[in-house]
Amino acid sequence: MRPGDDLASLALDGCEGERIAPSDGDVFAFTQKVVSKSEGRIVSLAGVAPSALASRFAEESGRDPRLVEIVLREARRVVRMDRSVLITETRHGFVCANSGVDASNLEDEDTVCLLPEDPDGSAGKLRGALMERTGKKLAVIVTDTFGRPWREGQVNVAIGIAGMAALDDHRGLADPRGRKLLVSAIAVADEIASAAELVMGKLGRVPVAVVRGYPFEAGGGGIGPLLRSPEKDLFR
Amino acid sequence: MRPGDDLASLALDGCEGERIAPSDGDVFAFTQKVVSKSEGRIVSLAGVAPSALASRFAEESGRDPRLVEIVLREARRVVRMDRSVLITETRHGFVCANSGVDASNLEDEDTVCLLPEDPDGSAGKLRGALMERTGKKLAVIVTDTFGRPWREGQVNVAIGIAGMAALDDHRGLADPRGRKLLVSAIAVADEIASAAELVMGKLGRVPVAVVRGYPFEAGGGGIGPLLRSPEKDLFR
Repeated sequence: MRPGDDLASLALDGCEGERIAPSDGDVFAFTQKVVSKSEGRIVSLAGVAPSALASRFAEESGRDPRLVEIVLREARRVVRMDRSVLITETRHGFVCANSGVDASNLEDEDTVCLLPEDPDGSAGKLRGALMERTGKKLAVIVTDTFGRPWREGQVNVAIGIAGMAALDDHRGLADPRGRKLLVSAIAVADEIASAAELVMGKLGRVPVAVVRGYPFEAGGGGIGPLLRSPEKDLFR
Repeated sequence: MRPGDDLASLALDGCEGERIAPSDGDVFAFTQKVVSKSEGRIVSLAGVAPSALASRFAEESGRDPRLVEIVLREARRVVRMDRSVLITETRHGFVCANSGVDASNLEDEDTVCLLPEDPDGSAGKLRGALMERTGKKLAVIVTDTFGRPWREGQVNVAIGIAGMAALDDHRGLADPRGRKLLVSAIAVADEIASAAELVMGKLGRVPVAVVRGYPFEAGGGGIGPLLRSPEKDLFR
Protein backbone atom coordinates (compact mmCIF):
# COMPACT_ATOMS: atom_id res chain seq x y z
CA MET A 1 0.00 0.00 0.00
CA ARG A 2 1.46 3.33 -1.13
CA PRO A 3 0.13 6.88 -0.90
CA GLY A 4 -2.47 7.41 -3.58
CA ASP A 5 -3.19 3.67 -4.06
CA ASP A 6 -6.84 3.03 -4.80
CA LEU A 7 -7.92 1.27 -1.63
CA ALA A 8 -11.53 0.74 -2.76
CA SER A 9 -10.37 -1.11 -5.87
CA LEU A 10 -7.93 -3.20 -3.89
CA ALA A 11 -10.71 -4.11 -1.44
CA LEU A 12 -13.00 -5.16 -4.29
CA ASP A 13 -10.19 -7.18 -5.86
CA GLY A 14 -9.80 -8.88 -2.50
CA CYS A 15 -13.53 -9.63 -2.40
CA GLU A 16 -13.30 -11.21 -5.84
CA GLY A 17 -10.35 -13.33 -4.71
CA GLU A 18 -12.38 -14.52 -1.72
CA ARG A 19 -15.52 -14.92 -3.84
CA ILE A 20 -17.43 -12.36 -1.82
CA ALA A 21 -19.99 -10.50 -3.94
CA PRO A 22 -20.79 -7.20 -2.19
CA SER A 23 -24.48 -6.98 -1.27
CA ASP A 24 -26.81 -4.26 -0.05
CA GLY A 25 -26.28 -3.80 3.67
CA ASP A 26 -22.65 -4.95 3.81
CA VAL A 27 -20.33 -3.04 6.13
CA PHE A 28 -16.74 -2.72 4.91
CA ALA A 29 -14.32 -2.38 7.83
CA PHE A 30 -10.84 -1.07 7.06
CA THR A 31 -7.89 -0.92 9.43
CA GLN A 32 -6.61 2.52 10.28
CA LYS A 33 -3.19 1.44 9.11
CA VAL A 34 -4.17 0.71 5.53
CA VAL A 35 -6.28 3.88 5.28
CA SER A 36 -3.47 6.01 6.70
CA LYS A 37 -0.96 4.48 4.33
CA SER A 38 -3.15 5.08 1.30
CA GLU A 39 -3.50 8.70 2.40
CA GLY A 40 0.23 9.17 2.89
CA ARG A 41 -0.02 9.66 6.66
CA ILE A 42 3.49 8.31 7.16
CA VAL A 43 6.06 10.65 8.65
CA SER A 44 9.78 10.28 8.91
CA LEU A 45 11.47 10.47 12.29
CA ALA A 46 14.56 11.95 10.66
CA GLY A 47 14.87 15.62 11.39
CA VAL A 48 12.24 15.61 14.19
CA ALA A 49 13.58 17.72 17.07
CA PRO A 50 12.16 16.44 20.36
CA SER A 51 11.09 18.92 23.00
CA ALA A 52 12.53 18.74 26.51
CA LEU A 53 9.30 17.10 27.70
CA ALA A 54 9.40 14.49 24.93
CA SER A 55 13.05 13.74 25.66
CA ARG A 56 12.50 13.32 29.39
CA PHE A 57 9.50 11.01 28.96
CA ALA A 58 11.31 9.04 26.25
CA GLU A 59 14.22 8.45 28.57
CA GLU A 60 11.96 7.38 31.44
CA SER A 61 9.97 5.02 29.26
CA GLY A 62 12.75 3.72 27.02
CA ARG A 63 11.36 5.10 23.79
CA ASP A 64 12.60 7.06 20.80
CA PRO A 65 12.31 10.75 21.77
CA ARG A 66 11.36 11.66 18.20
CA LEU A 67 8.41 9.27 18.36
CA VAL A 68 7.28 10.80 21.66
CA GLU A 69 7.57 14.23 20.08
CA ILE A 70 5.27 13.22 17.23
CA VAL A 71 2.79 11.69 19.69
CA LEU A 72 2.66 15.00 21.59
CA ARG A 73 2.24 16.97 18.36
CA GLU A 74 -0.77 14.81 17.43
CA ALA A 75 -2.43 15.43 20.82
CA ARG A 76 -4.68 18.22 21.93
CA ARG A 77 -4.25 17.24 25.55
CA VAL A 78 -2.32 14.73 27.60
CA VAL A 79 -4.69 12.57 29.67
CA ARG A 80 -2.05 10.45 31.47
CA MET A 81 1.73 10.43 31.29
CA ASP A 82 2.76 7.91 33.83
CA ARG A 83 4.41 4.51 34.29
CA SER A 84 5.57 4.38 30.63
CA VAL A 85 1.99 5.00 29.49
CA LEU A 86 1.13 8.01 27.38
CA ILE A 87 -2.62 8.46 26.94
CA THR A 88 -3.70 11.48 24.96
CA GLU A 89 -6.76 13.04 23.46
CA THR A 90 -6.16 13.38 19.74
CA ARG A 91 -7.22 16.33 17.65
CA HIS A 92 -10.19 14.21 16.53
CA GLY A 93 -11.31 13.70 20.14
CA PHE A 94 -10.19 10.07 20.56
CA VAL A 95 -8.66 9.18 23.90
CA CYS A 96 -6.06 6.50 23.21
CA ALA A 97 -2.45 5.47 23.73
CA ASN A 98 0.22 7.45 21.89
CA SER A 99 -2.26 9.59 19.91
CA GLY A 100 -2.84 6.55 17.71
CA VAL A 101 0.72 6.86 16.33
CA ASP A 102 2.04 3.44 15.39
CA ALA A 103 5.39 2.13 14.23
CA SER A 104 4.53 -1.47 13.31
CA ASN A 105 3.85 -2.89 9.87
CA LEU A 106 5.76 -0.14 8.08
CA GLU A 107 8.32 -0.66 5.34
CA ASP A 108 10.78 1.96 6.52
CA GLU A 109 12.15 1.57 10.05
CA ASP A 110 12.57 5.29 10.54
CA THR A 111 8.92 6.18 9.91
CA VAL A 112 5.71 6.14 11.91
CA CYS A 113 2.07 6.10 10.89
CA LEU A 114 -0.44 8.76 11.99
CA LEU A 115 -4.22 8.45 12.20
CA PRO A 116 -6.09 9.75 9.15
CA GLU A 117 -6.58 13.51 9.22
CA ASP A 118 -10.38 13.10 8.97
CA PRO A 119 -11.42 9.46 9.52
CA ASP A 120 -15.12 10.15 8.78
CA GLY A 121 -14.03 11.78 5.53
CA SER A 122 -11.84 8.75 4.76
CA ALA A 123 -14.79 6.44 5.39
CA GLY A 124 -17.05 8.62 3.26
CA LYS A 125 -14.67 8.62 0.30
CA LEU A 126 -14.18 4.86 0.50
CA ARG A 127 -17.94 4.35 0.73
CA GLY A 128 -18.55 6.58 -2.28
CA ALA A 129 -16.00 4.68 -4.37
CA LEU A 130 -17.27 1.25 -3.24
CA MET A 131 -20.91 2.13 -3.92
CA GLU A 132 -20.14 3.61 -7.30
CA ARG A 133 -18.31 0.50 -8.40
CA THR A 134 -20.70 -2.07 -6.94
CA GLY A 135 -24.05 -0.28 -7.23
CA LYS A 136 -24.80 -1.60 -3.69
CA LYS A 137 -25.87 0.27 -0.57
CA LEU A 138 -22.92 -0.11 1.80
CA ALA A 139 -21.51 1.34 5.00
CA VAL A 140 -17.82 1.83 5.81
CA ILE A 141 -16.03 1.83 9.15
CA VAL A 142 -12.38 2.75 9.67
CA THR A 143 -11.12 0.83 12.71
CA ASP A 144 -8.26 1.03 15.17
CA THR A 145 -7.15 -1.02 18.14
CA PHE A 146 -7.52 0.82 21.46
CA GLY A 147 -6.84 -0.15 25.05
CA ARG A 148 -9.41 0.36 27.80
CA PRO A 149 -9.18 1.48 31.41
CA TRP A 150 -10.23 -1.23 33.86
CA ARG A 151 -9.80 -4.12 31.41
CA GLU A 152 -6.69 -5.75 30.01
CA GLY A 153 -6.26 -6.25 26.28
CA GLN A 154 -7.10 -4.03 23.34
CA VAL A 155 -10.21 -4.19 21.19
CA ASN A 156 -10.97 -2.85 17.76
CA VAL A 157 -13.21 0.22 17.74
CA ALA A 158 -14.53 2.58 15.08
CA ILE A 159 -12.62 5.81 14.39
CA GLY A 160 -14.46 6.81 11.20
CA ILE A 161 -17.95 5.92 9.99
CA ALA A 162 -19.95 6.51 6.80
CA GLY A 163 -23.44 5.39 5.87
CA MET A 164 -24.66 4.00 9.19
CA ALA A 165 -25.62 5.26 12.63
CA ALA A 166 -22.86 4.74 15.21
CA LEU A 167 -25.31 4.05 18.05
CA ASP A 168 -28.35 1.81 18.28
CA ASP A 169 -30.23 4.13 20.55
CA HIS A 170 -32.69 2.51 22.97
CA ARG A 171 -33.05 5.55 25.20
CA GLY A 172 -36.62 5.85 26.34
CA LEU A 173 -37.60 2.46 24.92
CA ALA A 174 -39.19 -0.11 27.18
CA ASP A 175 -38.67 -3.82 27.57
CA PRO A 176 -41.55 -6.10 26.48
CA ARG A 177 -43.16 -5.62 29.91
CA GLY A 178 -43.04 -1.85 29.77
CA ARG A 179 -40.14 -1.26 32.16
CA LYS A 180 -37.63 1.29 31.04
CA LEU A 181 -34.26 -0.05 29.95
CA LEU A 182 -31.29 1.04 32.01
CA VAL A 183 -28.93 0.50 29.11
CA SER A 184 -29.48 3.41 26.84
CA ALA A 185 -27.53 3.06 23.62
CA ILE A 186 -25.37 0.35 22.09
CA ALA A 187 -22.22 1.42 20.26
CA VAL A 188 -22.88 -0.89 17.32
CA ALA A 189 -20.16 0.65 15.14
CA ASP A 190 -17.62 -0.33 17.80
CA GLU A 191 -19.11 -3.82 18.03
CA ILE A 192 -18.86 -4.22 14.25
CA ALA A 193 -15.24 -3.05 14.41
CA SER A 194 -14.58 -5.68 17.09
CA ALA A 195 -16.29 -8.40 15.07
CA ALA A 196 -14.15 -7.42 12.06
CA GLU A 197 -10.94 -7.69 14.09
CA LEU A 198 -11.66 -11.36 14.71
CA VAL A 199 -11.13 -12.06 11.01
CA MET A 200 -8.52 -9.37 10.32
CA GLY A 201 -6.15 -10.29 13.15
CA LYS A 202 -3.10 -8.24 13.93
CA LEU A 203 -0.28 -10.10 12.26
CA GLY A 204 -2.18 -11.51 9.32
CA ARG A 205 -2.06 -8.38 7.21
CA VAL A 206 -5.77 -8.58 6.39
CA PRO A 207 -6.64 -4.89 6.14
CA VAL A 208 -10.34 -5.14 5.30
CA ALA A 209 -13.28 -7.27 6.37
CA VAL A 210 -16.88 -7.45 5.16
CA VAL A 211 -19.48 -7.68 7.91
CA ARG A 212 -22.73 -9.01 6.48
CA GLY A 213 -26.24 -9.35 7.85
CA TYR A 214 -26.36 -6.58 10.44
CA PRO A 215 -29.45 -4.45 9.79
CA PHE A 216 -27.77 -1.12 10.49
CA GLU A 217 -29.68 2.11 10.64
CA ALA A 218 -28.69 4.44 7.81
CA GLY A 219 -27.28 7.70 9.08
CA GLY A 220 -24.68 10.32 8.44
CA GLY A 221 -23.57 11.32 11.91
CA GLY A 222 -20.12 9.78 11.58
CA ILE A 223 -18.05 9.05 14.68
CA GLY A 224 -19.36 12.07 16.65
CA PRO A 225 -22.04 10.23 18.66
CA LEU A 226 -19.36 7.86 20.06
CA LEU A 227 -17.11 10.63 21.36
CA ARG A 228 -17.85 11.57 24.96
CA SER A 229 -17.27 15.25 25.59
CA PRO A 230 -14.63 16.00 28.25
CA GLU A 231 -17.33 17.78 30.30
CA LYS A 232 -19.43 14.60 30.52
CA ASP A 233 -16.46 12.33 31.17
CA LEU A 234 -15.74 11.32 34.75
CA PHE A 235 -12.45 9.66 33.84
CA ARG A 236 -10.47 12.17 31.84
CA MET B 1 -36.60 -18.52 32.23
CA ARG B 2 -36.99 -19.61 35.85
CA PRO B 3 -34.45 -20.62 38.50
CA GLY B 4 -33.26 -24.13 37.81
CA ASP B 5 -34.34 -24.14 34.16
CA ASP B 6 -31.94 -26.09 31.99
CA LEU B 7 -30.36 -23.30 29.98
CA ALA B 8 -28.10 -25.61 27.94
CA SER B 9 -31.10 -27.62 26.74
CA LEU B 10 -33.04 -24.47 25.91
CA ALA B 11 -30.08 -23.16 23.92
CA LEU B 12 -29.84 -26.42 21.97
CA ASP B 13 -33.60 -26.36 21.33
CA GLY B 14 -33.11 -22.84 20.00
CA CYS B 15 -30.32 -24.05 17.71
CA GLU B 16 -32.60 -26.76 16.36
CA GLY B 17 -35.33 -24.19 15.76
CA GLU B 18 -32.86 -22.06 13.80
CA ARG B 19 -31.38 -25.14 12.08
CA ILE B 20 -27.95 -24.52 13.57
CA ALA B 21 -26.07 -27.78 14.12
CA PRO B 22 -23.38 -27.15 16.76
CA SER B 23 -19.89 -27.79 15.38
CA ASP B 24 -16.41 -28.11 16.81
CA GLY B 25 -15.06 -24.64 17.52
CA ASP B 26 -18.40 -22.88 18.03
CA VAL B 27 -18.55 -20.27 20.77
CA PHE B 28 -21.88 -20.04 22.60
CA ALA B 29 -22.45 -16.54 23.97
CA PHE B 30 -25.12 -16.14 26.66
CA THR B 31 -26.44 -12.89 28.08
CA GLN B 32 -25.79 -12.29 31.76
CA LYS B 33 -29.51 -11.83 32.25
CA VAL B 34 -30.52 -15.29 31.14
CA VAL B 35 -27.70 -16.94 33.07
CA SER B 36 -28.54 -14.99 36.23
CA LYS B 37 -32.22 -15.86 35.91
CA SER B 38 -31.50 -19.56 35.47
CA GLU B 39 -29.34 -19.38 38.60
CA GLY B 40 -32.01 -17.60 40.63
CA ARG B 41 -29.98 -14.39 41.01
CA ILE B 42 -33.16 -12.33 41.30
CA VAL B 43 -33.70 -10.45 44.53
CA SER B 44 -36.77 -8.70 45.80
CA LEU B 45 -36.60 -5.02 46.72
CA ALA B 46 -39.26 -5.59 49.37
CA GLY B 47 -37.76 -5.49 52.83
CA VAL B 48 -34.42 -4.01 51.71
CA ALA B 49 -33.46 -1.31 54.22
CA PRO B 50 -31.37 1.35 52.48
CA SER B 51 -28.41 2.87 54.28
CA ALA B 52 -28.11 6.62 54.75
CA LEU B 53 -25.61 6.77 51.88
CA ALA B 54 -27.89 4.80 49.57
CA SER B 55 -30.84 7.01 50.47
CA ARG B 56 -28.95 10.24 49.86
CA PHE B 57 -27.58 9.15 46.50
CA ALA B 58 -30.99 7.78 45.48
CA GLU B 59 -32.59 11.11 46.21
CA GLU B 60 -29.92 13.03 44.30
CA SER B 61 -30.14 10.73 41.30
CA GLY B 62 -33.87 10.06 41.31
CA ARG B 63 -33.61 6.33 41.92
CA ASP B 64 -35.14 3.74 44.18
CA PRO B 65 -33.07 3.79 47.41
CA ARG B 66 -33.50 0.03 47.79
CA LEU B 67 -31.95 -0.49 44.35
CA VAL B 68 -29.01 1.74 45.28
CA GLU B 69 -28.61 -0.23 48.50
CA ILE B 70 -28.35 -3.50 46.58
CA VAL B 71 -25.85 -1.95 44.15
CA LEU B 72 -23.65 -0.93 47.10
CA ARG B 73 -23.96 -4.40 48.66
CA GLU B 74 -22.73 -5.97 45.42
CA ALA B 75 -19.68 -3.67 45.29
CA ARG B 76 -16.27 -4.07 46.85
CA ARG B 77 -15.45 -0.45 46.19
CA VAL B 78 -17.09 2.63 44.75
CA VAL B 79 -15.09 3.99 41.81
CA ARG B 80 -17.28 7.05 41.04
CA MET B 81 -20.45 8.33 42.65
CA ASP B 82 -21.18 11.54 40.83
CA ARG B 83 -23.66 13.24 38.49
CA SER B 84 -26.20 10.41 38.84
CA VAL B 85 -23.55 7.89 37.86
CA LEU B 86 -22.58 5.05 40.18
CA ILE B 87 -19.55 3.12 38.97
CA THR B 88 -18.36 0.33 41.20
CA GLU B 89 -15.91 -2.50 41.29
CA THR B 90 -17.88 -5.69 41.82
CA ARG B 91 -16.80 -8.55 44.00
CA HIS B 92 -15.67 -10.30 40.81
CA GLY B 93 -13.38 -7.38 39.89
CA PHE B 94 -15.51 -5.87 37.12
CA VAL B 95 -15.67 -2.09 36.99
CA CYS B 96 -19.11 -1.19 35.69
CA ALA B 97 -22.23 0.87 36.31
CA ASN B 98 -24.44 -0.15 39.24
CA SER B 99 -22.44 -3.30 40.09
CA GLY B 100 -24.12 -4.91 37.07
CA VAL B 101 -27.49 -4.86 38.87
CA ASP B 102 -30.30 -4.54 36.33
CA ALA B 103 -34.04 -4.03 36.59
CA SER B 104 -35.14 -4.49 32.97
CA ASN B 105 -36.60 -7.61 31.36
CA LEU B 106 -37.86 -8.99 34.68
CA GLU B 107 -41.33 -10.38 35.26
CA ASP B 108 -41.82 -8.86 38.71
CA GLU B 109 -41.55 -5.08 38.98
CA ASP B 110 -40.24 -5.20 42.51
CA THR B 111 -37.21 -7.34 41.74
CA VAL B 112 -33.75 -6.76 40.33
CA CYS B 113 -31.23 -9.08 38.73
CA LEU B 114 -27.68 -9.56 40.04
CA LEU B 115 -24.63 -10.77 38.15
CA PRO B 116 -23.93 -14.50 38.48
CA GLU B 117 -22.03 -15.36 41.65
CA ASP B 118 -19.20 -16.97 39.67
CA PRO B 119 -19.51 -16.18 35.94
CA ASP B 120 -16.55 -18.40 34.95
CA GLY B 121 -18.23 -21.22 36.85
CA SER B 122 -21.52 -20.50 35.07
CA ALA B 123 -19.72 -20.61 31.72
CA GLY B 124 -17.96 -23.83 32.69
CA LYS B 125 -21.18 -25.58 33.68
CA LEU B 126 -22.93 -24.50 30.50
CA ARG B 127 -19.98 -25.65 28.44
CA GLY B 128 -19.93 -29.02 30.15
CA ALA B 129 -23.63 -29.56 29.51
CA LEU B 130 -23.44 -28.38 25.90
CA MET B 131 -20.42 -30.54 25.11
CA GLU B 132 -21.95 -33.59 26.75
CA ARG B 133 -25.12 -33.28 24.73
CA THR B 134 -23.52 -32.37 21.39
CA GLY B 135 -20.23 -34.25 21.54
CA LYS B 136 -18.59 -31.14 20.09
CA LYS B 137 -15.66 -29.09 21.32
CA LEU B 138 -17.19 -25.73 22.28
CA ALA B 139 -16.38 -22.59 24.21
CA VAL B 140 -18.83 -20.53 26.25
CA ILE B 141 -18.86 -16.81 27.06
CA VAL B 142 -21.25 -15.11 29.46
CA THR B 143 -21.71 -11.52 28.30
CA ASP B 144 -22.91 -8.24 29.73
CA THR B 145 -23.31 -4.73 28.39
CA PHE B 146 -20.86 -2.24 29.92
CA GLY B 147 -20.24 1.45 29.36
CA ARG B 148 -16.78 2.83 28.74
CA PRO B 149 -14.97 5.96 29.88
CA TRP B 150 -14.10 8.30 27.01
CA ARG B 151 -16.63 6.82 24.56
CA GLU B 152 -20.40 7.05 24.43
CA GLY B 153 -22.54 3.95 24.11
CA GLN B 154 -22.28 0.56 25.74
CA VAL B 155 -20.73 -2.55 24.24
CA ASN B 156 -21.07 -6.19 25.10
CA VAL B 157 -18.08 -7.68 26.90
CA ALA B 158 -17.23 -11.04 28.43
CA ILE B 159 -17.83 -11.56 32.15
CA GLY B 160 -17.34 -15.33 32.24
CA ILE B 161 -15.35 -17.59 29.92
CA ALA B 162 -14.88 -21.35 29.56
CA GLY B 163 -12.87 -23.32 27.03
CA MET B 164 -10.99 -20.54 25.29
CA ALA B 165 -8.22 -18.05 26.03
CA ALA B 166 -9.54 -14.56 26.77
CA LEU B 167 -6.60 -12.82 25.11
CA ASP B 168 -4.88 -13.35 21.80
CA ASP B 169 -1.47 -12.46 23.06
CA HIS B 170 0.93 -10.90 20.59
CA ARG B 171 3.37 -9.66 23.19
CA GLY B 172 6.88 -10.06 21.92
CA LEU B 173 5.77 -11.04 18.42
CA ALA B 174 7.04 -9.09 15.45
CA ASP B 175 5.34 -7.84 12.31
CA PRO B 176 6.32 -9.51 9.01
CA ARG B 177 9.32 -7.12 8.79
CA GLY B 178 10.61 -7.92 12.21
CA ARG B 179 9.50 -4.78 14.04
CA LYS B 180 7.97 -5.30 17.43
CA LEU B 181 4.24 -4.74 17.66
CA LEU B 182 3.14 -1.96 19.95
CA VAL B 183 -0.26 -3.55 20.45
CA SER B 184 0.35 -6.37 22.81
CA ALA B 185 -2.77 -8.45 23.31
CA ILE B 186 -6.25 -8.48 21.78
CA ALA B 187 -9.19 -9.13 24.10
CA VAL B 188 -10.80 -11.58 21.72
CA ALA B 189 -13.37 -12.79 24.25
CA ASP B 190 -14.67 -9.22 24.49
CA GLU B 191 -14.70 -8.91 20.71
CA ILE B 192 -16.69 -12.16 20.42
CA ALA B 193 -19.13 -10.84 23.03
CA SER B 194 -19.51 -7.65 20.97
CA ALA B 195 -20.05 -9.61 17.77
CA ALA B 196 -22.71 -11.69 19.55
CA GLU B 197 -24.58 -8.57 20.72
CA LEU B 198 -25.12 -7.57 17.10
CA VAL B 199 -27.42 -10.57 16.65
CA MET B 200 -28.82 -10.71 20.19
CA GLY B 201 -29.86 -7.05 20.42
CA LYS B 202 -31.27 -5.60 23.59
CA LEU B 203 -35.01 -5.64 23.09
CA GLY B 204 -35.23 -8.76 20.97
CA ARG B 205 -35.04 -11.23 23.85
CA VAL B 206 -32.44 -13.33 22.08
CA PRO B 207 -30.41 -14.62 25.01
CA VAL B 208 -27.86 -16.75 23.18
CA ALA B 209 -25.81 -16.51 20.01
CA VAL B 210 -23.48 -18.95 18.30
CA VAL B 211 -20.26 -17.43 16.98
CA ARG B 212 -18.74 -19.71 14.37
CA GLY B 213 -15.43 -19.76 12.56
CA TYR B 214 -13.15 -18.02 15.01
CA PRO B 215 -10.08 -20.20 15.59
CA PHE B 216 -9.86 -19.59 19.32
CA GLU B 217 -7.00 -20.81 21.41
CA ALA B 218 -8.13 -23.44 23.91
CA GLY B 219 -7.47 -22.38 27.47
CA GLY B 220 -8.83 -22.45 30.95
CA GLY B 221 -7.86 -19.09 32.38
CA GLY B 222 -11.41 -17.75 32.47
CA ILE B 223 -12.04 -14.02 32.74
CA GLY B 224 -8.97 -13.32 34.91
CA PRO B 225 -6.62 -12.20 32.13
CA LEU B 226 -9.09 -9.44 31.15
CA LEU B 227 -9.30 -7.93 34.62
CA ARG B 228 -6.79 -5.17 35.17
CA SER B 229 -5.58 -5.07 38.73
CA PRO B 230 -6.28 -1.81 40.58
CA GLU B 231 -2.53 -1.33 41.04
CA LYS B 232 -1.93 -1.33 37.27
CA ASP B 233 -4.95 0.84 36.50
CA LEU B 234 -4.36 4.56 35.95
CA PHE B 235 -8.09 5.33 35.86
CA ARG B 236 -9.62 3.80 38.97
